[in-house]
Amino acid sequence: MATPDKTSDAPYELIYWPGIPGRGEFVRLLFEEAGVSYTDTAKSGAGAVPAIMGYTNAKNKGDASNIPVFAPPILKHGDLILSQTPNILLYLAPRLGLAPKEGDDLYKLNQIVLTLLDGFSNEVHETHHPVAVGAYYEDQKPEAKRRAKSFVDERLPKFLSYVQRILDGEASGDGPWLHGGKLTYADLGIHGTEHAFPKAIQQMRSSGNYNGVFELYEAVKERPNIKAYLASDRRATYSDGIWRHYPELEED
Amino acid sequence: MATPDKTSDAPYELIYWPGIPGRGEFVRLLFEEAGVSYTDTAKSGAGAVPAIMGYTNAKNKGDASNIPVFAPPILKHGDLILSQTPNILLYLAPRLGLAPKEGDDLYKLNQIVLTLLDGFSNEVHETHHPVAVGAYYEDQKPEAKRRAKSFVDERLPKFLSYVQRILDGEASGDGPWLHGGKLTYADLGIHGTEHAFPKAIQQMRSSGNYNGVFELYEAVKERPNIKAYLASDRRATYSDGIWRHYPELEED
Repeated sequence: MATPDKTSDAPYELIYWPGIPGRGEFVRLLFEEAGVSYTDTAKSGAGAVPAIMGYTNAKNKGDASNIPVFAPPILKHGDLILSQTPNILLYLAPRLGLAPKEGDDLYKLNQIVLTLLDGFSNEVHETHHPVAVGAYYEDQKPEAKRRAKSFVDERLPKFLSYVQRILDGEASGDGPWLHGGKLTYADLGIHGTEHAFPKAIQQMRSSGNYNGVFELYEAVKERPNIKAYLASDRRATYSDGIWRHYPELEED
Repeated sequence: MATPDKTSDAPYELIYWPGIPGRGEFVRLLFEEAGVSYTDTAKSGAGAVPAIMGYTNAKNKGDASNIPVFAPPILKHGDLILSQTPNILLYLAPRLGLAPKEGDDLYKLNQIVLTLLDGFSNEVHETHHPVAVGAYYEDQKPEAKRRAKSFVDERLPKFLSYVQRILDGEASGDGPWLHGGKLTYADLGIHGTEHAFPKAIQQMRSSGNYNGVFELYEAVKERPNIKAYLASDRRATYSDGIWRHYPELEED
C-alpha cells in the first residue's frame, strides 16, 4: 500500500493549538526525527488560534478536493488538507522515510500507532475528563480519581504488556524498535504518560515487566534529532492539555 | 496511496465477539455491501471466544511477519493478521471496491472514518463506562447519566454537524454520499447510536439541522445487500456491547 507516486515539494504546515504538546506533538516528532523543515502555527503567536478556527468553524465546508476538518491537528501540504492524528502520520511517515512506501507492513505500523494513541493519549485524556469532555476538571474531580485509578491499575498495565508483547515478538526484529529491526514512526507514539502519572510509570519501570518498553522509550529520546528537539524552544511544556499532572490523581 | 499490487485469493476471516454487532459490524458491513464471502467466528458457537483468546492471550506474540493483537476485531486474510477497526477497514475497502486503490482520496476517507468511529462508537461506549472501562455499568450509573447528558447535549450535535458539513461541502459530490458522489466505505461508518439514544436521535432528526446525515443513514440501509443483511440471521441484535439502550440515560 501507500506508494507516494509524486513527491511534492510543497512545504509542510502543521496547524495546532499553542502552548501544549498535545496531539500535534506526534506530528512534530516525525518532522523532527526526519529533519524535515515545517511551519507550526502553534508558534505563530496571536495567529495560532484563529488559524485553527479558520478550518473548524461551521462555515468552512472544505473545498472541491478537501473535506472539512473536525479538530486539529491539521496538516496542510500543498493543496492537500488532512486531519485526524493517525491519518496525518500515515500520510507523512512513508514520505519522511519513517515507514515503507508500499506493502502490508504499513498496516501493521498503523495498527501499532492506533493502539498507542488509544492507550497513552486518548485514555489518559479521559482520566481528567471522565463525565463531560466539555466541562472543567474541577467539576469532575471525584470521578477523575476513579477513572485514574482504573487507568493506572488496569488499562496502563494492559497497554504496556501489549507493547512488550510486540517487542518480544519475532516481527519486531533486532534492537529496541517495534517493527522490522529499525526505527519507524510507530516508535514515536509514546510520550506524555510519564508526565501525567510519574508515580505509576516509576512503579511500572521498577517492576521489570516492561523493560523493552522503557528501553524503546529511552532510545527514542536519545535519537540525535529528537534529543535536540526536546532541548529546544520548539518543544512546548506539558500543561493543560492531554497529559496533565494532577498529583491528587495518583494519591492513595 | 494503497495500491493492492497482488490481489490475494485467500478467504477473508473475521474474528470477533459473539452476540453483539460491536466493532466487528463495521467490517461485516463492508463484506456485505461488496457481496464478498467471509467467515465470521462470532457465528461459530462455542469456538467464538476461544478464537479471540488465541490471538489476544499474553503468550501470543505474533509470528515472523505479524505483530500480536491487542483486541478484536481481527482480520485474517491468508497469512496476514490485522487488528484495529479503522486499520482493517483501510486494508479492505480498496480491495472490495469501496475506496480508490491509490491517491490522496483514501486519506480523506480514513479521516472521515476515524471521526465517525470516535463520535458514534467510542464516545457512545464511554457514556455507559465513564469512570472505569473494566467495571460494570451498574457501578457507575450516576456518572453514566452525566456523561450521557454531555454526549447528547454537546458531543452528538457536534459530530452530526461535522457530518452535515462534509455533505454540504463540494468534495462530497452529488447524491447522499460523503465523498466523491459515490458510495464508499466511509458511508458505512454510522450505526447503533439510534439504538442507544433513540429519543436524542429522534430530536436531532426532527430539528431539520442534519437532514443530509439522516438521508445518508437511510440510503445506506436501503442498499440492497445491506438491506438483505440487516434482515438476515447473520445480523446480531444490539445487546450489552458498545450501543446499549439504557432508557434512564435519556430521562430528564
